[in-house]
Amino acid sequence: MPRHITSFSNDTVKRLRSLREKKARRLEGLFLAEGLRIMAEARDVGVLPEIVACAEGDLHPLAAEIVAQAEAAGAEAIVVPDEIMAKMSGKDNPPLLLGAYRQPRLGLADLDRSTSPMWFVAEKLRDPGNIGTILRTGDAVAAGGLILVDDSADPYSVEAVRASMGAIFTQKIVQVPWEPFLAWLREEPGQLVGTSLQTDHDYLDPTYEQPCFLLVGNEQAGLPDAYEAECDLLVKMPMLGRADSLNAAVATAVMAFHIRASWR
Amino acid sequence: MPRHITSFSNDTVKRLRSLREKKARRLEGLFLAEGLRIMAEARDVGVLPEIVACAEGDLHPLAAEIVAQAEAAGAEAIVVPDEIMAKMSGKDNPPLLLGAYRQPRLGLADLDRSTSPMWFVAEKLRDPGNIGTILRTGDAVAAGGLILVDDSADPYSVEAVRASMGAIFTQKIVQVPWEPFLAWLREEPGQLVGTSLQTDHDYLDPTYEQPCFLLVGNEQAGLPDAYEAECDLLVKMPMLGRADSLNAAVATAVMAFHIRASWR
Repeated sequence: MPRHITSFSNDTVKRLRSLREKKARRLEGLFLAEGLRIMAEARDVGVLPEIVACAEGDLHPLAAEIVAQAEAAGAEAIVVPDEIMAKMSGKDNPPLLLGAYRQPRLGLADLDRSTSPMWFVAEKLRDPGNIGTILRTGDAVAAGGLILVDDSADPYSVEAVRASMGAIFTQKIVQVPWEPFLAWLREEPGQLVGTSLQTDHDYLDPTYEQPCFLLVGNEQAGLPDAYEAECDLLVKMPMLGRADSLNAAVATAVMAFHIRASWR
Repeated sequence: MPRHITSFSNDTVKRLRSLREKKARRLEGLFLAEGLRIMAEARDVGVLPEIVACAEGDLHPLAAEIVAQAEAAGAEAIVVPDEIMAKMSGKDNPPLLLGAYRQPRLGLADLDRSTSPMWFVAEKLRDPGNIGTILRTGDAVAAGGLILVDDSADPYSVEAVRASMGAIFTQKIVQVPWEPFLAWLREEPGQLVGTSLQTDHDYLDPTYEQPCFLLVGNEQAGLPDAYEAECDLLVKMPMLGRADSLNAAVATAVMAFHIRASWR
């Protein structure tokens, strides 16, 4: 049975609250997911929280089920008043359920590129919303996962988890510097595809090979020249207006859906 | 010459600050754009701010040029210390330049559908970032504009303007209830295309007509059945993973780029 907690200074409350900060997430190896929808997604793929907090009052039957399963698996469960829920979630209108989940912390050796024809690789993404949205798109195109190259925003931040709409629990995520990524990439077949302004290759023309590693650059700066030079294929998306770039998550999705369509 | 202001309670400072709120934007008919990049975009398409604020110290030559042009066109210009810039922009790391621009406030009668083969129509979008990102995509595919149907987030909010990366100044924006939109749509040729889970039509198969009006539904609920029923074409994007939807701005972009490609 969940313990009833009414103090803001309770250790579990403080611990959950701390997970809004990157430093605490890194130290604890945990991350927050908020709301029944995403927590049900996690449960449906066999992932349960290690700590779960629910609001006072009657729980939704599905929420009660998740709490019971989490407790049976050894999780700590607490019930807290709305004010504490609001404090933990940073929202005036807090979720009825939130959970702290273990970060898988995978390395390149944990990826089996034969499991999917498409993988996303992103360089120095700064916006956690973009990372979450790319994960969500990855689920839609059955990508194998997202390799975050160099120093990116935290894919386990609350904003990224929320934007992923549950894909944080299904897409494999690896964080790694460029050089080891490149060494790993070249160990086996795999086509590295970058989008660039410095090419005349229209994105509709080439034949995309499998597995395809789709490389996305930083929101402001795009891909460094040295990274473009390593691509097996550079393509350009036509920009018909005044701007010369798309939102990073949008560009990734347009490319991914086109490549998927080209394979049909 | 810009006036030097050091008081938080100065009327112009308070007025600029107030434009972070929807109510003030509606009352004043103005909106904020922050930073040199987007304000240079505006200037390059002939749009100048009615009020402009710059940080103390040497101005970037391009910023100085914009300020001078705005003043010559009758704008009020002020120079303020960093603390006031931070207060007005809501950022610890404030921009060096910000401006208040007039909202065009167009109606359907201001749209000439023959000027573009593609138009975006969005229903009850809640996330201003999505609206801005859709405007940015609209620029990339040379869409004519964005028609916001029913009650949407404010396209002139700071988040939407920022995500638009300048497209707020080039894409035509109309806010209108569904019924008058539909009546206007049917006055002349135009194919209304919706994405839906309730169809077997794959998005790659149909012939898209010009002008095409691409209809995007609310982030949570998608399109109401009654709105889907009005579509000339309903298509489905394949979802290969667990989720049944994409981010609204992502779905719009994937469809728009595919339709553009299908016309080549």
